[in-house]
Formats: sequence, structure tokens, C-alpha cells
Amino acid sequence: MGWSTAERIVVRGKDLPGEILGHLNLGDMAFFELTGRVPDAKESKLFNAMVVTLVEHGITPSALAARLTYLGAPEAMQAAVAAGLCGLGSVFVGSTEGVAKMLSESSAEEILQKYKRVPGLGHPLHKPVDPRTRRLFEIARETGFYGKHCRVMEEIAKAKGLTLNATGAIGALACELGLDWRAVRGLGVMARAVGLVGHLLEESRQPMAEEVWLRIEEEASRHLKP
Amino acid sequence: MGWSTAERIVVRGKDLPGEILGHLNLGDMAFFELTGRVPDAKESKLFNAMVVTLVEHGITPSALAARLTYLGAPEAMQAAVAAGLCGLGSVFVGSTEGVAKMLSESSAEEILQKYKRVPGLGHPLHKPVDPRTRRLFEIARETGFYGKHCRVMEEIAKAKGLTLNATGAIGALACELGLDWRAVRGLGVMARAVGLVGHLLEESRQPMAEEVWLRIEEEASRHLKP
Amino acid sequence: MGWSTAERIVVRGKDLPGEILGHLNLGDMAFFELTGRVPDAKESKLFNAMVVTLVEHGITPSALAARLTYLGAPEAMQAAVAAGLCGLGSVFVGSTEGVAKMLSESSAEEILQKYKRVPGLGHPLHKPVDPRTRRLFEIARETGFYGKHCRVMEEIAKAKGLTLNATGAIGALACELGLDWRAVRGLGVMARAVGLVGHLLEESRQPMAEEVWLRIEEEASRHLKP
Amino acid sequence: MGWSTAERIVVRGKDLPGEILGHLNLGDMAFFELTGRVPDAKESKLFNAMVVTLVEHGITPSALAARLTYLGAPEAMQAAVAAGLCGLGSVFVGSTEGVAKMLSESSAEEILQKYKRVPGLGHPLHKPVDPRTRRLFEIARETGFYGKHCRVMEEIAKAKGLTLNATGAIGALACELGLDWRAVRGLGVMARAVGLVGHLLEESRQPMAEEVWLRIEEEASRHLKP
Repeated sequence: MGWSTAERIVVRGKDLPGEILGHLNLGDMAFFELTGRVPDAKESKLFNAMVVTLVEHGITPSALAARLTYLGAPEAMQAAVAAGLCGLGSVFVGSTEGVAKMLSESSAEEILQKYKRVPGLGHPLHKPVDPRTRRLFEIARETGFYGKHCRVMEEIAKAKGLTLNATGAIGALACELGLDWRAVRGLGVMARAVGLVGHLLEESRQPMAEEVWLRIEEEASRHLKP
Repeated sequence: MGWSTAERIVVRGKDLPGEILGHLNLGDMAFFELTGRVPDAKESKLFNAMVVTLVEHGITPSALAARLTYLGAPEAMQAAVAAGLCGLGSVFVGSTEGVAKMLSESSAEEILQKYKRVPGLGHPLHKPVDPRTRRLFEIARETGFYGKHCRVMEEIAKAKGLTLNATGAIGALACELGLDWRAVRGLGVMARAVGLVGHLLEESRQPMAEEVWLRIEEEASRHLKP
Repeated sequence: MGWSTAERIVVRGKDLPGEILGHLNLGDMAFFELTGRVPDAKESKLFNAMVVTLVEHGITPSALAARLTYLGAPEAMQAAVAAGLCGLGSVFVGSTEGVAKMLSESSAEEILQKYKRVPGLGHPLHKPVDPRTRRLFEIARETGFYGKHCRVMEEIAKAKGLTLNATGAIGALACELGLDWRAVRGLGVMARAVGLVGHLLEESRQPMAEEVWLRIEEEASRHLKP
Repeated sequence: MGWSTAERIVVRGKDLPGEILGHLNLGDMAFFELTGRVPDAKESKLFNAMVVTLVEHGITPSALAARLTYLGAPEAMQAAVAAGLCGLGSVFVGSTEGVAKMLSESSAEEILQKYKRVPGLGHPLHKPVDPRTRRLFEIARETGFYGKHCRVMEEIAKAKGLTLNATGAIGALACELGLDWRAVRGLGVMARAVGLVGHLLEESRQPMAEEVWLRIEEEASRHLKP
């Protein structure tokens, strides 16, 4: 990915101090890592919005796992972030990958035929419209990236009568940007790493993990005690 | 950290679709998570440069650990990123925290007296100047954040005859921005999460982990065999 | 799973100090955790042999990942073990789960029809017989647990002309012992946790991670430098 | 740590199928990994009791973190165990290491002088005696390993008027067995890996993580909503 000598540090062919620092924001740098090229202003706006969407979802299972880990090992915050990331699998954030893979392989009809449960659809709370999807597609239109993958997802959502949720929108937009579907789960992983650091700082100031633990432990063992 | 209803999603008091998406880049969102406020243009430029500096350091132990993990569990990329983050402790990236804590507690004289080994100083390759430090301090001057913590680190580096390395510069700049030292290790953790996703995408296309493993295993067991 | 008062500690209905400590070895305790009952002498012998088989496989990708993590965070050994475990997925140790699930769902004929690649078969080195499989099945015969799942695996291995490897044998034996297939990947996970602690102790005395890292980094960036 | 050819697998100088499988239980194998020699019957009894003590502590923060991780990524159980291990740091299980290190460096008087807070002492529930300590020391007497490190800990506990808890007893016994203090945190890590697999199997049958998450999220965001 890069090399350095006493005087120079080069990342993917660009001089880190001279061409990257002060020029690329963190989202742009992520785009550069995933594609090997610096995004233009439109790509930057859309890509940053996609990742920013995934940073903070409140008290998720992932945030709770990170906070409970921090309670036992406050000296190793990196391990608490790691613990929080371990759960970003098939059930939650990983579904963006499912959407991107599906769209890169199949048409709308094929998807409707093959998939019993289409990833990226449905939301327990945001019905009939996920406000993040609405806004992300608005930015996609503004930047010229609203295209066939977005349309396919909207068509399927309509056919199924389900909300096109934020992970569905982000999976579609990743395809519009030409990202490799194998990198798409990574968008949520990097975004949540940012959010988890925020949770751990909050935990260090206003702890909640200990109380959660003690309550759940008490409830779980109460009926067992003599 | 936030709340949502069917129609609204609010993160730390701001409307996610309306006030955040399309307005904040990923680095700004990280700043917002850590401070509770949106950075102004100068803070945004400096903070993004600091985190971007930490994204990609080539084939680090952390990147190798992530790649070797991905070799065994390619279906769980999030766990490979987590494995890579677990090693960001006292020896490598964690030293930014040490610098920020030290600067928030002691003056230059106190540091020179108390610390045998000052964190943030010395580099095996970048001597006498770390080009990242030079560039980060240039951006700090431009944005008005070059201040007493930067001066203290430069003074100590001079007194010790050692390079002020990038983690030293970032620790000092975190203090200039008023960040809580307990969040500072998190800057490297979130940045590396971005970089590790890049490494894993590369690993999925041009694998190196299997060859590394087989060579090291062969070398490690050769002398034991009959 | 348990409860305690000032004077008593009870795990799954048994008094920890009075009925478990000094009576159950670590493998028995694992069996107890997974089944809710204490193994008899025969179950204990077989189950312990199965898990012990999975403890130490030399310099695996998992052991390397743990050692590289320890290099960066020696103060958080638990995180280095965690990093090593993260890679026990579909490719390596996780295949025991695939075998157990397959055997609990399908007959030999069905397996031969449905599976292109049968888990638990084939080994790059141990051909035509994996010495661990031979020994594990010997213990299974001795203890009365060699049964239909072992026979199915041997039949399929013969039909395919492939070695029945240790993970195939352990998957079959887990079914003979009546273990839930959802716990079977866990056998490898707990066993490797034991082995990884051994690797990290060795790493603390005779380090190899730093040299591995520096060599691979040098090789990976050599061709990029000017 | 080992080597293999087509016909043989050797771990630390012993033939795995011939000398280890069927002869060593999982605790013995752990002892072998940490010391390079097979324990005798007395060492085996004591060492197994020590590790077994640490397997199951009910709904700990570590068990909760593992269960919450499994909720998001049930296909990657190894990552859920990893997440649970990440929190075994300075606050909980890691204190065994503190005890062993302290005892290997200092006498009772030195400890009483130097340490404000002695690791291994105190328990919120088990007062004045931790029933695990009583039982472990009973086994230590039986096997001839009750010695000066146990006495030092008992002396200090008496001087401080605090319970000698199980981690204090295990730290002392690790010293009696001549284990390297750098391996001692690993005893808890391997033991908990066993216990966490048990928790995850239970979670797959009687889930609790989702309910915990939804309740805590609801409580945490209730006061924020308009």
C-alpha cells in the first residue's frame, strides 16, 4: 500500500504530507483506500454521506458490547472497539454487503424470484419511508449518482410493500459508485469504529455498563436462588 | 447519543438527514461524536489531517494480523478488522494517548524530569524530521492551532535530540483542539479501521497472508523435524 | 447459568467448591457447560481427547495473528488471544461445525449427492490417513462411542478417495456424544484459546513477531521504492 | 511448538496421537503448553481446579458482550467469544496476573508498604471467606502445594481485614506451581473461552441479548424524545 524513506512517505502513489494531508478528509481517504483514486467533489459528498449515516445508531448491541468490554479493560480501549465491531455480521450492518452483492449479480426480476427475504428492506420503526434513504437518494440525485441500482431497490421495495432502509440505500449507492461489493461491509465497520470511540468516551464520563450488568445479572439469577 | 421516531433520527441534538448528511464529512462526524459540536472549517481541516495521517502505515503488525484473520474467516470481515485493532496498544498507535495525557498534566520541565522515555519522540527511519509532523504543524499554523502544547513537544524533542514523530505531533494537536485525552487513542483506532478495510479488500484480490503463513510455519518448524 | 450468595456458589445446579473443584477437569467442565451434565469416565476420556487434539497446531495464521497483536499491546494479552480466535471461521477450525451440522441433517447418500466439497475431508500433508483420526476413532471404540456418524464419514472419505481429517473425525464424534452442532465450532475455539496462551507466553520469552513483521514489510514495499 | 510429517504430529517433543490423546485432559494440555512438561497427578488436580474455578461466573460483562455480539453475527461464533475475552483486563480476570507478579517480586512487608490497593483482596458478596479460596487451598494442602505464597496472601488479607478472593488464591497457587506470571492472566482467558462457548450455546436456545438491548436502548433514549 505504501513505502517510506527518511524524507518521504508515499501511500498508493501519493505523497502523504504533500498530496493527502490537508487535502483529503477522512471519508475521502477511505474512498482512496478502497478505489486507489481520490474522489472528485461529487463522489466525496455522496461517499461521506453514506459512511456518516452508519456512524451512530445509539445504544446498539455493538455499542453495549463495547461499553461492557471497556468496563473490564479500560486500559485497552482498542479492544473495546474491536469487541463492538465483532458483531457487525449478517444481522445488522453486514446487510449492506448482501445488498451490494445481490445488485452486482442479479436484475430486479431475478431478485424477486430468487430471494425470499431481500436484504436492505424493512424497518421496525421507519415506515413507510426511512428518512435516511430519502436524504441519501436526494444527495445521489444532486451529485448525479442516482441510477439503475437505486431504481432496482426502489422497485423491489414497492413490489414487496416494504421500506427501503438505509442499509439497502447504501448498498445500492455503493454499486453506483462502482465499489467492489467485497468492500461494502467495510463501510459500516469503519463508520462504527468512529461511533464506538464516541460511545467509549461517553462511557468514561457517564458510565452505564456497570449498572446494566448488575441489573441483568440480578434478574437472570433471581429465580435460581434458594 | 440519539433517538428516533418513525419520521425522525436525531444524533446528539442534530437531525441526521437534515443537518448532518451532506454537511459533515466522516472526520467532522468523528469530531462531533467526541466533542458534541460541529467543527468549524479550521478545526475540520486540522482534525481531518490528524486522523488521515493514521489511516495507512503499510504492512504493520496490525495489518498482518487482520489479513491472517481474514484468511481463516473471509465471511466475517468485521472480525478481521477487529483482530487488527486489538494490537493498537501501548507500543504502537496508543502512544498518542500517552502524549495527550502527559501534556494535559505536566509542563516541559516536569516532563523532562519525570519521564525517562517520553512518548511521541524518536523514529527509526524519519530522522531528524518526521515529514508528517512538519506538515501537520504547518496546517496547525495555517488554522491558528499551533500553540503551547506543540511548543512543549518541540522543546522536549530538541532537549532530547530526538525526532518529534507523528504520534507526538497528533497528541499535542489533540490538546490544542481541546480533546479529552481519554479519546485520543481512539483517533488511531478509528483511522486504522479505515485503513484495515483497505488492506482486506486488497487481500481479497491479491492475497499475501497464506504465503506468509506457510513460509513462517516452515521456517519455524524446520529445525525440529527429524 | 448460576447464582451465588455470601456462602455458596452454584453453577448449573452444582455446588462449585463442593461438587466441581477437585472433581472435574477442564474438559469435563466444558462438557458440563455444553450439556448440563457431568460426563462419565468414558465420555470424559473421549471428549477431552477431541478438544486436546485442537489445542496446538504450531504456527497457524491464528497463532501468528495473536503474536503480532501481542507485539503492539503486550499489556492486553486477552486481546491478543481474542485476535487469534477471530480467524477460526469457515476455512480452518470452523469446519468441525460444518461436519456436525451435515451429519445431523443428512445420510451418506444425501451427502454424496448434495455436497460438491464435503467438509472434514482432505489434508495437504496427512495422506492417506490422518494419525489423529486413527487415534480418536481408537479411543471412540474403546469407550463405546464409535458409531454410525463415524461410519458415514469413513464411507464418504472412501468414496471420495480423500483423507478423513481430524476436524471430520471430531465433527462425527461430537454427533456420537449427542452434542448440539451449534456448539461444535466452540470446541475448536476453546481449545485454541488454550493453545494461544501457550504461544503468547513463548512470544514473551522468544519473540518472533517483530522479525516476521519487519521482513514482510520490507519485502512488500521493496519494489515500490524509487 | 511442534512439527508434522505425513505420518507424525509432534507437539513440544511429544507424539500427539501416541502420547497426548487419551492421556492428557484439557487442563493437563494447558499445563503442558505453559511449562513444557506433563503435570503429575497432584499438579493436574490442582491446576485443573484453578482453571475450572474461572470458567463460569454467570452473567458477567464478558458474557453479556459475547451474547450481544452473537446477536449480530451468529454465523461467526468465534468472534463472539473473542468479543467476550476482550474485556478480561485489569478490572476483572486480569487481577490474577497482578497477584502473581506481585508475589514473584515482593515479600508480605514490601507488599503492605508499597500497595495501596492489593490485587486479589476483597469481594462484594463473599465475606468474610470466599468459598472458592477455602476449597482451592484445601486442594493445595492435599496435593502438597500450599506454601509460602498462599501464606503471604492470607497474612495480607488478615492485615487488611479483607476477603482473600478466588483471583488472589489462584495468583498465589500459580506461583506455588512455578508458573511464569506472564502466563497467569491466560488462565482466566482460556477458562472463560470455555465458559463463553457455554453461554453462546444457551443464547442460541434461549436468547436474552435482544431483549436486553431493546430495553436498555429504550431507557437510554426515552428522556431525549420530544
